[in-house]
Parts: sequence; C-alpha cells; structure tokens
Amino acid sequence: MNIGIIGTGCYVPSRIIENSDFTAHEFFNADGSRIPQTNTVIIEKFKSITGIGERRYAKDHQNTSDLAFFAAESAITNAKIDKEELDYIIFAHNFGDVSFGKSQADTVPTLATRVKHHLEIKNPKCVAYDILFGCPGWIEGVIQAKAFIKSGMAKKCLVIGAETLSRVVDRNDRDSMIYSDGAGAAIIADTDDGGSILAHNSATYANGEANYLFFGASYSKSSQKDTNYIKMYGRKIYEFALTKVPQAMKDCLDSTDISIQEVKKIFIHQANEKMDEAIVKRFYKLYALEMPADIMPMSIEKLGNSSVATIPTLLDLVKRGKLENQRIKTGDVIIFASVGAGMNVNAIVYRY
Amino acid sequence: MNIGIIGTGCYVPSRIIENSDFTAHEFFNADGSRIPQTNTVIIEKFKSITGIGERRYAKDHQNTSDLAFFAAESAITNAKIDKEELDYIIFAHNFGDVSFGKSQADTVPTLATRVKHHLEIKNPKCVAYDILFGCPGWIEGVIQAKAFIKSGMAKKCLVIGAETLSRVVDRNDRDSMIYSDGAGAAIIADTDDGGSILAHNSATYANGEANYLFFGASYSKSSQKDTNYIKMYGRKIYEFALTKVPQAMKDCLDSTDISIQEVKKIFIHQANEKMDEAIVKRFYKLYALEMPADIMPMSIEKLGNSSVATIPTLLDLVKRGKLENQRIKTGDVIIFASVGAGMNVNAIVYRY
Repeated sequence: MNIGIIGTGCYVPSRIIENSDFTAHEFFNADGSRIPQTNTVIIEKFKSITGIGERRYAKDHQNTSDLAFFAAESAITNAKIDKEELDYIIFAHNFGDVSFGKSQADTVPTLATRVKHHLEIKNPKCVAYDILFGCPGWIEGVIQAKAFIKSGMAKKCLVIGAETLSRVVDRNDRDSMIYSDGAGAAIIADTDDGGSILAHNSATYANGEANYLFFGASYSKSSQKDTNYIKMYGRKIYEFALTKVPQAMKDCLDSTDISIQEVKKIFIHQANEKMDEAIVKRFYKLYALEMPADIMPMSIEKLGNSSVATIPTLLDLVKRGKLENQRIKTGDVIIFASVGAGMNVNAIVYRY
Repeated sequence: MNIGIIGTGCYVPSRIIENSDFTAHEFFNADGSRIPQTNTVIIEKFKSITGIGERRYAKDHQNTSDLAFFAAESAITNAKIDKEELDYIIFAHNFGDVSFGKSQADTVPTLATRVKHHLEIKNPKCVAYDILFGCPGWIEGVIQAKAFIKSGMAKKCLVIGAETLSRVVDRNDRDSMIYSDGAGAAIIADTDDGGSILAHNSATYANGEANYLFFGASYSKSSQKDTNYIKMYGRKIYEFALTKVPQAMKDCLDSTDISIQEVKKIFIHQANEKMDEAIVKRFYKLYALEMPADIMPMSIEKLGNSSVATIPTLLDLVKRGKLENQRIKTGDVIIFASVGAGMNVNAIVYRY
C-alpha cells in the first residue's frame, strides 16, 4: 500500500489586483515615517524582488471557507471518489473567516465544518478539523493525513489550504502587495496504483525566530489602533529560509533512496520569487550542482502569495496542464517544501 | 507497546468570578427583548440547570497561550521527561489569543509556537501546531498523538487544551455565565508500563447541526455591531448531545473487550451539570443499567465550562487527589467523552 495524492483542485479568485492598483496607497516604514520614494519606484522595486505582477482577491461576499469549498469540490471530482468515503477533512489556514470590512475572525464552527456543510457530506465519521501551522499548513496537513492512513485510522483524507490574506493586510505597508487570496486541495489516500509519499520532514523554530511573522499594528499612525495586520521581518525570514529550507529538503531526500538527479520538479511555497530561486539554488549547491532549468514551477507572478494555498494551487495547475512548460508524469519524483509563520519548515519527497 | 498518558498538568486561574458578580448585568433574549425576571431569579435558575456556582477568569495581562504554558510545564514535570524529547506540541483551542479588552484574535505565530517559545524548547524537530475542533479539541489532539505514535512518526506528544472564553462572551447573554478560562495538558507517549488508549471514536455533524454553536452579535441592541461573541442554541445542543454522546461512548466501549462493569470513571466535557448527568445516565441505560455513584468526577460547580480545558484539567485534579472522593488507580478503565462546536463528538476508552 502506498499513500498518495489521488486528486487535486484549486480555486483562483477571478478578481485581479494589479500592481498599479497600489499607486494611490500611502506607504510607511515600520517606524511610522513616510517612505521617501514615489509609489512608482516602490512598486518597481517590489516587482523586481518578489516577481509579483498581480494577485487575486476574493469577492467581497466570499470568505476563506467559500474558496476552500470550491477547491475541495474540484479535488473530489478529480479523484473520482464518493465524497461520503472521506475519513477526514483537514483544513489548513491561519486567520479563519474574516468578512470583508471586518477585523474579527470567525472560527466557530471550524472552517473544516463549513466546507463539510457546503459539500453536504452526511457521514458523521468524516472528521473535520482545522490546523494552524503558518504557510506550511497544507504540507503539514498532508503529513497528518499520512499518519492517519499509516496508522489505520483513515483511508481517504481531503486536505485543504485556503486563505484570504487581503482581509488582514495593512494597506500602508509595502508588504501588503505580496499577499493574495486562494484555495487549493488534494485527496490523500491509500492507493495501489497512484503515487506515494516517500518521506517527510517537519520542524518548528520557536526561539528567536518565533515572531519573524506576526500580527501587528499598522505602519500608519493614523490607522485604527485596535486592529492588527500580518507583519513580517522580511530580511530575517529571507536569511532563515535560505539556511533552513535547502537543508530540510536535503535531509528529506537523503532519507529516501532517490538521487538528486531523479528529482523532476520542486513545488516550493510561492513566497517571493527571488527567495524561492535562492532556496532551490542553494539546495542544488548542497549537492555541488547547478539548479536545472524548469525544475521549479512558479505561479507567483500572476497569483502572489496566498499562504497555505500556494502549493496545492500550483500542483493542481501543473497537473491540469495550465502552467506553460510544466508537466508531471507518472513516476516523476517531486519535492514539496514550505516555510512560514511559526517559524515552520517542512518538506515531502513524492513519487507521482 | 502501549500509547498512554505519562503525565498531566493544568492551570486554574486564581481569579474567581462568582454568580453574584453577574447581578448588575443586563440580560436580553436573542430577539433583543429584556428578560423579564430579576437577575436574582435568572442566576438561581442558571445555577440549578448548569450546576455552576463560580468560574475562573485569567488575569487581564494573561492570554490563552500563557495559561497553556503553565499547564504544559506542569505536565512535563509530572511526566518526568526531558522537554527536548517532545516530538509534537498539539494545542487545541478555538479562539486564539484574545487580549483583554480587544475583540481581534491573534494566531500568528500559532499558540503552539508561543508555548514552545515559553518552554524554551530548542529542538526544531518538536513540531508545534494548533488544532481547532470545538470543545472536543483536546480529546481530538490525543487521538492525533495516537496516530503519530502508532505510525512511528512520534514517541512523545504534549497535548494542550486552553481557552480564555471570558474574552469572547456577550455580557448581555445569560449563557455568558457558563464560560470560564483555563488550561489542561497531558503527555501522550509510547510506554511499556503506563496506561493505554484502548479505543477512540470521533465524528463531525455538519449538516443542520453545523451552527448550533456559532460566533454571533450581542443580544443587546446598543452593543458594538461589529463584534461577535460565542453563541449557542442551548436546547438543540442538549438534545443533540443526549442522542449522540451516549451512543459514541457505547460504540467506543463495545469496540474493546471491556465490559461496562469494568468502567471506573467517566471524564465528560464539563458543559452543563444537568446535561452531563443526563448523558451518562443515558449511556448506562443503553446497557439497561443505572448510573453508578461517583462514576463521573465533576469540577463545573467551581470551574465552569472552559471548553477544551475541562477534561485535561479534571483529569489532572483527580490524578493529584484534588477532587474529593475521586481517585484513579493503575488498571482502572476510564472513558473520556466530549461534545461541542462543529458539532463534534468524540470518546476514548483508556486503561490507566
């Protein structure tokens, strides 16, 4: 018996927010001082570092759990399973349902319950829960599904990653341009003919690193004092990611009998294009190799960083042939890797 | 190898809120009309139904993750393990850290990371994540720990349930008197000489039941429109719990080779004294038996309903001999059972 991905789905919101849509924003530094450059310069610099040209926002009436439902429904259809066979719905997010224009999150009932409700699954033995694990939450959900299946507690698990980061960004912080909304999902199951999770690796760095990503006040002194937004120490995260992620990928790969040459694709959390490239380059450098062309599918230029949703969305896009020059075929070895709030790092080596 | 509880801990906040402290509150019905009875009558009736005479609130400077840290530290000490040996920190809550006087929750980084940070655990391989699963979250965390250990992915897991419900109650809703703050924790480990999880059972009812517990507006029309509070359809929950929980406990027990006569204690989520008694009576009725005296330790009279924290707190109090006439000794078979938002129901049959 293998534990594999038997179906994928995603939901990419139709509302496109271009970089030029930020032209009228007032951008401040963390100390509250106005950033001296013009917004045109700020946006150009942002684009050159992150690779983000546009991003997607949910419609005003949609919440995270709504996006998740669309992705989940698509994954179930793609897997050609009866939804009533699901043993678990594992929903990775970090902020709950935050309605448009509100700041308070709603997590009661859980978002997993909301998705189960929308899917109209009757079977009470389909256990629905939420997991919070920063951006690596979807990969961690897959690892948990592996544990349930391996221990005989489940056969089929729906693992969702969804977020509406547009509801928790500080419009006076340049970093707000990074974030995006979206949802991705996969069905993880015991399977005889499909793929297989060959190894996983997971870690939490909670000492000095714990607050590299945090929930903090607006950079604008005139903003609402009581409302917090997603905030980060970008430089520290960059350095952290460049040290920890390549090594986590290597440790994971080296725990299998797969050689680096057999790796066909790397699906990395779409956080920042330059950072992602630097991570994968350093990963190959650990093997004294150059990074191969087209090894790393990217969707960040058009979709931004939608946290837990980036990897399952990217996987679904590639599986469905929607990403130019990017294909996976049966037998291909791929690596999933992520880094984010916690600070959490994880990786999976997978054979399709 | 067994999978057992090798240590417990809890943190009971020192601040006592008595029923009389609600005398000056204005109580409204869900439709916004004033409840016609005097508060003395309302409070008397509340006491007679729920059994709650007082409850605990965290100090203003404490958040959920702070209470959790104290419980976690105590469980680690009680288990006599090196904290660096922990493979997982599984933190069950439902509302995140909500600072006193604020309404917005903070879950970035996760509360599990915050506890790991406070515990000063250096080992990055100790994976810290949060689970949301309504009041049954702590039991579900134990079930997840079982999966990790059984599948060979872990040997020792810290499972915490903590909540500061005082931060999410509507002071104009009688039900606000139910809720309390607290934290409980246990170390789940592979063990040769300790206890053993004999069976578990878990379910999510997400059809008509999904919103029996929800996050909604204040009953007072003059209250802040933008702030939501924990709300429930008490009568529906009562009927739901009386149907589903006894059967879940029976299914769980019947999946083992233990007879009902061997069950020494039932640790049930401290939601409401009358409801808990009715559940356990009905459980015994399923075996055509009367409920034995002292089978069900209760802490609700003094501690109220602290959601995910009630069961691990109760267990720790009994283990340490702090609950009158309630003891567990090696070899005793006990049942854990819970019901709450989701609507989720779960149970564990355990031999100490």
